Amino acid sequence: MNEAQLEIEERLERMKELLNAENMPDFRDEFLALHSYEQGQVYLGLTKEERQKTYHYLSPNELGDMFEVIEEDEESVEEYLREMNPNYAADMLGAMYADNAVDILKQLNKHQVKVYLDLMPEENASEIKELLHYEDETAGSIMTTEFVSIVANQTVRSAMAILKSKAPEAETIYYIYVVDSEEVLVGVISLRDLIINEDDQLIADLMSEHPVAVKVTDDQNDVAKTIRDYDFLAVPVVDEVDHLLGIITVDDIIDVIDDEATSDYSGLAGVDVEETTENPFIAASKRLPWLITLLFLGMSTASLISRYEVMVSDASILAVFISLITGTAGNAGTQSLAVAVRKLATQDDSNTNFGKMIFSEIMTGLVTGLVTGITIFVVVGIWKHNFILGFVIGMAMLCAITVANLAGSLIPILMDRLGFDPAVASGPFITTLSDLTSVLIYFNIAALFMSYFVGQ
Amino acid sequence: MNEAQLEIEERLERMKELLNAENMPDFRDEFLALHSYEQGQVYLGLTKEERQKTYHYLSPNELGDMFEVIEEDEESVEEYLREMNPNYAADMLGAMYADNAVDILKQLNKHQVKVYLDLMPEENASEIKELLHYEDETAGSIMTTEFVSIVANQTVRSAMAILKSKAPEAETIYYIYVVDSEEVLVGVISLRDLIINEDDQLIADLMSEHPVAVKVTDDQNDVAKTIRDYDFLAVPVVDEVDHLLGIITVDDIIDVIDDEATSDYSGLAGVDVEETTENPFIAASKRLPWLITLLFLGMSTASLISRYEVMVSDASILAVFISLITGTAGNAGTQSLAVAVRKLATQDDSNTNFGKMIFSEIMTGLVTGLVTGITIFVVVGIWKHNFILGFVIGMAMLCAITVANLAGSLIPILMDRLGFDPAVASGPFITTLSDLTSVLIYFNIAALFMSYFVGQ
Repeated sequence: MNEAQLEIEERLERMKELLNAENMPDFRDEFLALHSYEQGQVYLGLTKEERQKTYHYLSPNELGDMFEVIEEDEESVEEYLREMNPNYAADMLGAMYADNAVDILKQLNKHQVKVYLDLMPEENASEIKELLHYEDETAGSIMTTEFVSIVANQTVRSAMAILKSKAPEAETIYYIYVVDSEEVLVGVISLRDLIINEDDQLIADLMSEHPVAVKVTDDQNDVAKTIRDYDFLAVPVVDEVDHLLGIITVDDIIDVIDDEATSDYSGLAGVDVEETTENPFIAASKRLPWLITLLFLGMSTASLISRYEVMVSDASILAVFISLITGTAGNAGTQSLAVAVRKLATQDDSNTNFGKMIFSEIMTGLVTGLVTGITIFVVVGIWKHNFILGFVIGMAMLCAITVANLAGSLIPILMDRLGFDPAVASGPFITTLSDLTSVLIYFNIAALFMSYFVGQ
Repeated sequence: MNEAQLEIEERLERMKELLNAENMPDFRDEFLALHSYEQGQVYLGLTKEERQKTYHYLSPNELGDMFEVIEEDEESVEEYLREMNPNYAADMLGAMYADNAVDILKQLNKHQVKVYLDLMPEENASEIKELLHYEDETAGSIMTTEFVSIVANQTVRSAMAILKSKAPEAETIYYIYVVDSEEVLVGVISLRDLIINEDDQLIADLMSEHPVAVKVTDDQNDVAKTIRDYDFLAVPVVDEVDHLLGIITVDDIIDVIDDEATSDYSGLAGVDVEETTENPFIAASKRLPWLITLLFLGMSTASLISRYEVMVSDASILAVFISLITGTAGNAGTQSLAVAVRKLATQDDSNTNFGKMIFSEIMTGLVTGLVTGITIFVVVGIWKHNFILGFVIGMAMLCAITVANLAGSLIPILMDRLGFDPAVASGPFITTLSDLTSVLIYFNIAALFMSYFVGQ
């Protein structure tokens, strides 16, 4: 255990002691001196009885600060809320930034959500209800409505005064958004600019006009791209006619980027890598659906080989190279798939020439296939003293790799066009599919040369 | 082409026109009104001749603002700098935030770096030289030295005055770091706190003590984890005895998270997915090393099967199931690999019980293997009217999957312990390796039952 780990453990022990000694003043002093993330580490380490005490020792507001930062799975969050007095839970949710409260409410069922919304102050409830409307993974679903907006026709001094009054609630005060009388976004000014400039300068003269904004219906990945490209700390969210609806802050975008990376990685491996369980039955139950599906796809390959059993019986040497050809083509297909998925994710759809992408992937397949095919032609020719066999294996390799590359790029493109996430097309799926095509190619080429192998 | 794309194209055309008409005043007006990211989009779209004009129309300072944001590959950056007058380039690098200047200089050779550092004002050069020392991928290599630090024994008013004077150079002014007379980090206060509190309050009373900091030698991924967990906009960097050396801002951390995700994804696929070329020869040259290496690993599988050729010749039915067993075990191994790599990446080393991790993976392999094995026992038994064959295939599947799961978790763990990045262990490598073990298992089990198959 390293230093940091030790510190976390010690802190947890200390807090447990204070709770069990029912020493509320010291617990409050020490707990509230921690950063909300560290408070979360403590909270998640408590037993149910210990947590109950925190609900008495801490105000809903104080616990809410911690819940802004906690990232927990569905079951736990539901359990925590159920432990609390419903009024306490509703107050806590109401005190949180609306976007974070929404993140938590989305993990509950409709009935529970209604209970908490009913118990909450009307103002908070209506803010949250609005946000709950937006479709998952859109800008609207991750934005918050707690931002600072001002009008252009005022001085730096008066803007600072507004900022000062709004700072306690706003999720960020580092960008101030400028709107007209209709709430249309017309500019943005950073707090840095407010501080650098003189008190009696006009906001209208200092603000950046035509600020970069995202639409409320935009995909959260596009929002992430904007924040990343522009190095923003936050981006404003507008509707179709540029009314300012909310903002999205960089900390939420980091979560989006993380989730996206994890889901791409999971997709490629054909397994949810967020699997944290150590229970082999639960782990297996999450991996089996893909494995069994692919087992049946693999069965079609087996039944295909079964049709060529007479050939194998006549020339058993053919069996030696089945796994080499299917394996290599599968590897090439996986490479091609990963490149295609990444291209689809990073390029703008409108800017992608799918035909060109597929053509380039086939050409790459031909080149890799040619090099691999010639290599295996020489190796097999020398090893088995049979260059005709080498030619058959090399030729099969060339064709199988080209087809695997085609499949590796075509399948994610098709999924993308049909509106599915191309990252779901997994490596295991491509390798299993390419087993089938590779075997078909291999035995058809071998059939042409059977007279040379029989009896080998 | 969508709206945003069109806007970018139109803007580029307009800027090209102004440059070619040698209309410096309008070019400056319009170019400088853009966000630096948009300036970068324009700059990267210009021809060499057009770029030359920008070096005359824009000051090194103005072009530097744009270069803070541009992300380009080695060759291009080198080319751009070589196009500029060396004095101009040195001034531009000197005007940039030190961390971004270092990012660019790291892409040049030593001689070029020396030329620019010699031409630069001493103060900038020494800052940059210090940063260039730090090892790649450490906190030191991505931090910047342009931060705001103050002493505790002063009022909010005087701190704001310091902030105002330092704001133009500092990379962020949203956190102000508090140091003692020895430059040891003792606290942090956010600009939000400065603004909310009264002008004559003391910094010492308002600041958070024991601020979270990272060590200058920490891995950049650990820094990313800190910023993400705590939802920070920046984190201070200290040496072994807590001297404040620099800060790392969230925009640089987003790049780290992105790069890490891309390299994990590339690792799993066994290909560099940042491949943007459409030249099939270049693409193939990047994919072939892995493919050919694995081809030779696959050759050992082939030569292993070759030893059992007599068995295949006697019972050709055995050949039918080779690809099903190797394929399914490979899929299971890939899942296991991805889960292990992710666990290693997210867990603290000191906290990971490797033995437990491997044991849990073997158990998961046994459960998935059992389910898959029983399924295939039934399917093959019915299909081939031969439950002994079904038993052999099922048994081989169970063992092959368990071994593949073991390999999938053991290999990344070994790599991690030996100091390599476990994410380099690719899916293709695991599938090719598990082909070998699966074939060995399959034929050894089949050998025990040969008398039942001969002549089938």
